[in-house]
Amino acid sequence: MAGFRVELGSASHTVEIGAGLLDRVGELAAGQGLRGRCAIISDKNVARLFAERAARALKGGGLDPLIFEVEPGETSKSLHTLERIYDFLVEAKFDRAASIFALGGGVVGDLAGFAAATFLRGIALVQVPTTLLAQVDSALGGKTAINHPLGKNLIGAVYQPRLIVADVELLRGLPEREFREGIAEVIKYGAILDAPFIGELERNVEAILARDAKLLEQIVERCLRLKAYVVERDEHEAALRTILNFGHTVGHALENSAGYGRYLHGEAVAIGMVAATRLSCALSGLALESAQRLRNLIAAYGLPVTMPTGWCNDDFMQALGRDKKRSDDAIRFVLLTELGKTTSRMLTPDEILPYLAEL
Amino acid sequence: MAGFRVELGSASHTVEIGAGLLDRVGELAAGQGLRGRCAIISDKNVARLFAERAARALKGGGLDPLIFEVEPGETSKSLHTLERIYDFLVEAKFDRAASIFALGGGVVGDLAGFAAATFLRGIALVQVPTTLLAQVDSALGGKTAINHPLGKNLIGAVYQPRLIVADVELLRGLPEREFREGIAEVIKYGAILDAPFIGELERNVEAILARDAKLLEQIVERCLRLKAYVVERDEHEAALRTILNFGHTVGHALENSAGYGRYLHGEAVAIGMVAATRLSCALSGLALESAQRLRNLIAAYGLPVTMPTGWCNDDFMQALGRDKKRSDDAIRFVLLTELGKTTSRMLTPDEILPYLAEL
Repeated sequence: MAGFRVELGSASHTVEIGAGLLDRVGELAAGQGLRGRCAIISDKNVARLFAERAARALKGGGLDPLIFEVEPGETSKSLHTLERIYDFLVEAKFDRAASIFALGGGVVGDLAGFAAATFLRGIALVQVPTTLLAQVDSALGGKTAINHPLGKNLIGAVYQPRLIVADVELLRGLPEREFREGIAEVIKYGAILDAPFIGELERNVEAILARDAKLLEQIVERCLRLKAYVVERDEHEAALRTILNFGHTVGHALENSAGYGRYLHGEAVAIGMVAATRLSCALSGLALESAQRLRNLIAAYGLPVTMPTGWCNDDFMQALGRDKKRSDDAIRFVLLTELGKTTSRMLTPDEILPYLAEL
Repeated sequence: MAGFRVELGSASHTVEIGAGLLDRVGELAAGQGLRGRCAIISDKNVARLFAERAARALKGGGLDPLIFEVEPGETSKSLHTLERIYDFLVEAKFDRAASIFALGGGVVGDLAGFAAATFLRGIALVQVPTTLLAQVDSALGGKTAINHPLGKNLIGAVYQPRLIVADVELLRGLPEREFREGIAEVIKYGAILDAPFIGELERNVEAILARDAKLLEQIVERCLRLKAYVVERDEHEAALRTILNFGHTVGHALENSAGYGRYLHGEAVAIGMVAATRLSCALSGLALESAQRLRNLIAAYGLPVTMPTGWCNDDFMQALGRDKKRSDDAIRFVLLTELGKTTSRMLTPDEILPYLAEL
């Protein structure tokens, strides 16, 4: 078991990582001063597996949990589902002392987090991520959001949780494809901030894919500490935090243009990272050998490394133009100068297309 | 013309107060670093009077304004109207460098402020209040919200504007009833924080009701400085800021139970303050003479001072029980110990009803 603090002034909070922590979530929450009424917000698949255990643990910590289930999948990140959550919270007479536990992957974390951020102008939030992607990335940093019909995450808030509890044991039951997509974000942290980590991920492919508990705990802790380092220095993405978007600009455009659901988020980011390394070789001096290493590592974890057939369609171009990190027409692209070191360039979609065509 | 800074760390911002500032809003916004695309969000009544002037001023400051109108009135503080604003912002391709100008009273400030707080996880917001109520109170402090069908302001965020511009000249055209309701919040600031201010409001009833420009500028500045003092010390209403709810617990319950629209907000607060002074005489040692002075002052400005016929209905009781400041069953009531000094007590609805019946 491991733990540390994310230092953000009055929004500072604790992160706990370890096997079996779901059964201790009530005790950990009570240790942060939470008590009384709370909601476990989860999707139906995750709820079936873990909601009752979470509820039991919360009761054991002196809290009074209700379970609220949403449909699995990205379509739940909608104003419609958010409205249903508000109705539930109002009817259950939640007050400012109440709290929300987001039990699930990135969708649930974003949705339940945004509900917590905006109900009664903000009630306590605990992130209990159940996927690798959420444990290594989305649960930390305070980004919450829902989608607009014309783009992902256009509506949201930066709202820090009171506590993050990552139980790596929950990852054992994760479908293979969902486990692997999480590795994409793991590799991202190595690529942008921690070259030695890349070496470890290369050496341990089999043990990691076999979900060795000790290794998973180390990986989750390492990624979250790296992310905390970034978020502590730039909570609102004024500068440094943009490096976390490495691979995400092309990744988001692929997600939008290929239709939600064709690629899992991590899969689209995997392709986006390969695209970004190709650009980095051309524009920021990344060695071809380093680009090849990163591409091989991504492929070794069973993640896609090429653009799909027909990628260069109107939807893709429009999605690139509508990326919310853009300002004016050029897009800020995060590039690598070497493994573990980043830079960035303002590039127009036209400037990057030739390189994407080469993947 | 007067101005000061609200000191809130990275959310610190400037307040400008004076006659004719609407025509300088572009220059003032540019001075805060705002440029490019912006939206003037306003209700149809206010937009007819001031939106074109505001747009001209913003163009003069180098900004590129679009005007978005909502229906006047509390019903616009809905998820439905919020969704229309999101659609507008997405379709107009607003990015993170864009800004929103809330031109109107409390409804527009709350609604446009919440849109700014949640679009792209927060874009720059400028409050341009056009009513006395908004100029002396709601424009400052960062509270933004929309209503839920079961209660006011249940969905919202604390989100600070980048700039507040209060043009007291705009108050000259305000309907009499809307002007007077603003005085209720003015009196509140005297009651909770500034006894000498009460004396000035007593001496200047006629000149204030005649909307003397110099007096209005002084009053708006004094109220905003008092509010800034409170908000700087307790942005998230953990303790001190609750004193701003003086008169608001009963006030909100009256607004909810009498149906939106029977009482203007300030009118309901006026009655709520009389109720709170009655409770203060019984429970916190307020001198009867002080209570009488406050009640006379409220009445002198043409505001209501008695509970309406049939006030004690199920809706009223339910509204008291659903007030979002409650925790458990008792409600935290802000009381006076003397004019300009507050205390608070946890009271159940049953404990306060006998005193309300005496008004």
